[in-house]
Amino acid sequence: MPTYTANTKDMQFVLHDVLNVSSAGLPGYEDMDRDFTEAVLDAAAKVSAEVLAPLNTVGDTEGCVLENGVVRTPTGFDRAFAAMKEGGWTALDCDPEYGGQGMPYVLATAVGEMFVSANMAFNMYQGLTHGAYSAIHAHGTPEQKAKYLPKMVSCDWTGTMNLTEPHCGTDLGMMRTKAEPQADGSYKITGQKIFISAGDHDLAENIIHLVLAKAPGGGEGTKGISLFIVPKFIVNDDGSLGARNPVSVGKIEEKMGIHGNSTCVMNYDGATGWLLGDLHKGMRAMFTMMNEARLGVGLQGYAVAEAAYQNALAYAKDRLQGRAVTGAENPNGPADPLIVHPDIRRNLMDQKAFLEGARAFTFWGAHLIDRGHKAGDAAAEGLVGLMTPVLKGFLTDKGFETAVAAQQVYGGHGYIEEWGMSQFARDARITMIYEGANGVQALDLVGRKLAQDGGKHVMAFFEMVKAECKAHEGDERMKPFTDALKVASKQLQAAGMFFMQNGMKNPNAALSGSYDFMHLMGHVCLGLMWTRMAKAAYAALDAGATDTAFYEGKIATGRYYMARQLPACGMHLARIESGAEPVMALSVDQF
Amino acid sequence: MPTYTANTKDMQFVLHDVLNVSSAGLPGYEDMDRDFTEAVLDAAAKVSAEVLAPLNTVGDTEGCVLENGVVRTPTGFDRAFAAMKEGGWTALDCDPEYGGQGMPYVLATAVGEMFVSANMAFNMYQGLTHGAYSAIHAHGTPEQKAKYLPKMVSCDWTGTMNLTEPHCGTDLGMMRTKAEPQADGSYKITGQKIFISAGDHDLAENIIHLVLAKAPGGGEGTKGISLFIVPKFIVNDDGSLGARNPVSVGKIEEKMGIHGNSTCVMNYDGATGWLLGDLHKGMRAMFTMMNEARLGVGLQGYAVAEAAYQNALAYAKDRLQGRAVTGAENPNGPADPLIVHPDIRRNLMDQKAFLEGARAFTFWGAHLIDRGHKAGDAAAEGLVGLMTPVLKGFLTDKGFETAVAAQQVYGGHGYIEEWGMSQFARDARITMIYEGANGVQALDLVGRKLAQDGGKHVMAFFEMVKAECKAHEGDERMKPFTDALKVASKQLQAAGMFFMQNGMKNPNAALSGSYDFMHLMGHVCLGLMWTRMAKAAYAALDAGATDTAFYEGKIATGRYYMARQLPACGMHLARIESGAEPVMALSVDQF
Repeated sequence: MPTYTANTKDMQFVLHDVLNVSSAGLPGYEDMDRDFTEAVLDAAAKVSAEVLAPLNTVGDTEGCVLENGVVRTPTGFDRAFAAMKEGGWTALDCDPEYGGQGMPYVLATAVGEMFVSANMAFNMYQGLTHGAYSAIHAHGTPEQKAKYLPKMVSCDWTGTMNLTEPHCGTDLGMMRTKAEPQADGSYKITGQKIFISAGDHDLAENIIHLVLAKAPGGGEGTKGISLFIVPKFIVNDDGSLGARNPVSVGKIEEKMGIHGNSTCVMNYDGATGWLLGDLHKGMRAMFTMMNEARLGVGLQGYAVAEAAYQNALAYAKDRLQGRAVTGAENPNGPADPLIVHPDIRRNLMDQKAFLEGARAFTFWGAHLIDRGHKAGDAAAEGLVGLMTPVLKGFLTDKGFETAVAAQQVYGGHGYIEEWGMSQFARDARITMIYEGANGVQALDLVGRKLAQDGGKHVMAFFEMVKAECKAHEGDERMKPFTDALKVASKQLQAAGMFFMQNGMKNPNAALSGSYDFMHLMGHVCLGLMWTRMAKAAYAALDAGATDTAFYEGKIATGRYYMARQLPACGMHLARIESGAEPVMALSVDQF
Repeated sequence: MPTYTANTKDMQFVLHDVLNVSSAGLPGYEDMDRDFTEAVLDAAAKVSAEVLAPLNTVGDTEGCVLENGVVRTPTGFDRAFAAMKEGGWTALDCDPEYGGQGMPYVLATAVGEMFVSANMAFNMYQGLTHGAYSAIHAHGTPEQKAKYLPKMVSCDWTGTMNLTEPHCGTDLGMMRTKAEPQADGSYKITGQKIFISAGDHDLAENIIHLVLAKAPGGGEGTKGISLFIVPKFIVNDDGSLGARNPVSVGKIEEKMGIHGNSTCVMNYDGATGWLLGDLHKGMRAMFTMMNEARLGVGLQGYAVAEAAYQNALAYAKDRLQGRAVTGAENPNGPADPLIVHPDIRRNLMDQKAFLEGARAFTFWGAHLIDRGHKAGDAAAEGLVGLMTPVLKGFLTDKGFETAVAAQQVYGGHGYIEEWGMSQFARDARITMIYEGANGVQALDLVGRKLAQDGGKHVMAFFEMVKAECKAHEGDERMKPFTDALKVASKQLQAAGMFFMQNGMKNPNAALSGSYDFMHLMGHVCLGLMWTRMAKAAYAALDAGATDTAFYEGKIATGRYYMARQLPACGMHLARIESGAEPVMALSVDQF
């Protein structure tokens, strides 16, 4: 059975050596010194390893079962959920006014990485609740907040997000679920929603569904959509639970992975709901949570891969097979461990260099969100808005690729369920799809984010990369980083230029290259992260850090990324510059 | 439920327009005119669509079950297997002396593509039998051939290949299964084998296991290994079935995919076996079937992806979601079909361009095997030996990637098992692993095949590519093909040069780039195939072919491959030229 041990050392490195959170001077960051974050991370690591990880295989094997209209979660999930609530792990970055601990989002993100690595499907019950909490926190009336938030912060009640219907996912304008206004100000919600994660289960007393539906008078398409609070049990004014709302589970979907989470078809049969936020402004209300939600999915992509990598690494050190081509390294054993073989190392280095870069990128994104939310830093908010599709699309594509690569290290054993490597690949696969399929992320990036606010955010990003390279001019040690980053960022700018010159005449010229652009930009972002990490590692070594193996390993891993991953940028640019013609040449019938 | 319709038109194009099989002048090719191959392909297509494809989901859902020591295959597999035998589909390219139809391997390969696309797990029962048939055909005594082959050709008896043990897969030198010689010339086989595809089942009266084991006196490592015939039921001299041999199923493995095939742990408890081929030359006997076996797995990689692509394409034409950015294309409907969106097309074109290239590459490989076997063409045999790791490694990596890309077209529905797209991805995954994991293929290519026979085969390949480019000099229409192919093949040669210059001093410098080299060479091979296909399509158009949409579509798809896929070559070269240092820099403890 696979195991998981949180890489708290690397998390500390990113938080302190790279992001310098303790001197960020942000509201809520007052306690963020090394000791404090270490204490939080260590405690979370313990819960992850001891409570969550042992249930990961159980969740996959047993899945969720629908019996007489009631969903039963896998064995042990209830006890683990109680332990998470008891430990306060559901409330980390929530508002203290409603029982939260008010910690920075960046720290909650680090802890979230562990929980996802240990047990992605389990963590979704809490993750969806957090999303619903954020929506009510941002758009609810004072009464709604008082009524729902304390119980959601504690996860006594969980939450869901209901967007998709059988005939529409991305294109929500075609939504059919309707909301009929009632005399008392409530609405009757009727319709079917599908793919509802944590739609029903036995872990909480109540479930607060947030449901998009069309109320009369809003017009066609997405304009007519509003957001409603539809509790499984109506909550009385004194906080007690009242009548069962007519919302039921149609079925639990059989999925490729994340079996431990109940993905439900939800039927709303005139269920009572209350408007959340403004009438006919439901899409906007949903989108305010988008950056966090998508960053959270990007995190899932690499966090699952991190767990896969750890097990692949252990296997590569342990499994004896063949001899090193340069001479036996385990001469007294029957064979050498797999890790002596260059191609196994190439594979492991691909994984490691991605994962550490992804962690830095994600924590940086979370830190930018903190800057936006806690300090009103509009530039940070614009930058993370630009980054969001890259965080989601690039990290989940590469995360899945990494989980598959980790599985490959096991050979045939990787294909057998009992070793657990298949589950990592199957679980990671969903992250490329939900919360906006990655093609939609690419469209958001190229069709919307690049030009947003007159292109100011992407220009700021280019300037930031340029400044980073310039800051190390003349530093020979940094040359492998800055040289490669310069080339890659020029390729990114050339791609942007191609879109500007051709996209106006023919939008397809830009959109045909959108996916490659997302990956090109992802590599530049990770190149930037590795440049910053290398700088931080050299600074630590120069300052006499005793853990030289860690810092030197960090630099070597970064050099690998620059030498072996950044060359993908040239390929992406060439694809982009081939334009729309090869992509659009065939008539539909010629396919 | 997914469907499958064989692309016989494209198969005919490859066989006749590209490979010109009817004028190849090879023994056994006498009947290979367009009408004959069309008749065979059409009949196979009918069986694939009507008998095999409908059982693909059934096989995945039900899997195989072990009850009281007996393996039960999924519902309907027995009837389908009987239909395949009845139709003569198990005997297509087998030796007429033993009841086969003696057709060319290239035609059996085309038919095999269909069977795998329709139902990979099912086809393995027959596929493994064919492998065992080939081994006995090549190495058996006349008595062994007479005793086993007729029943194996008809699939009244099936076959297996037993190599892997729990502690050794790639490194068979550590094998523990032993063979003790008996007074009557037979051997007692004792040991445990794992991952035995079609190890036991209820589809045949008898199963002929081919088992690698160590007989006394052979020395250490792989030198001591011999190959044995170990029937489930001993076959009497009159051909009737005798005693049950003590070989039993330990368990059926729970796998990520190919659930319809029973992958067994096999326990040999003093089972009676007979030496096949020479004592202590078992590895060599196994390796004589290697080219076909690995080509067969490469075929599985793209054939499963072909089925996935067909369904993704149908979904993209059918599913209405969003509007074309250049204006509504289905103005009277609620939305446009997915296929109007450039990024969906980009995805579909990636799939289509790979699949058609892979088909041509595989058929070409099979044709080279025919040249070697039927006409003693040593150059063809050397060339296909060089290509074999590329056919296996590149086509399965890209095949899996393609199946995942097809799944992505479905959005959330791709993750739900009922749509069948998850199965394609899960089934395709094994092809990267078995019959030598793809890292081992890369090692075989760079560590062995490049230098084989003084490097003569790779030089011949370079010359072939050069000649292909030269043949179209001055042909403006062919420039997008020859220009791109020239660049890519120069990059491939530069990579080979890097290995020669650095690999002698440090073998790790070559092996660190082996995986990238395999992919770089794969792209050059597909670039060569596309150049040949474009030439053939132009020739057909020039000759007044009426189906212009097909031939023009073929050329446009080829242009896509050259413009959008060949740029990967530069990336692979850059990775290769970064050498061993970034790959080997970390100590084991620094990971």
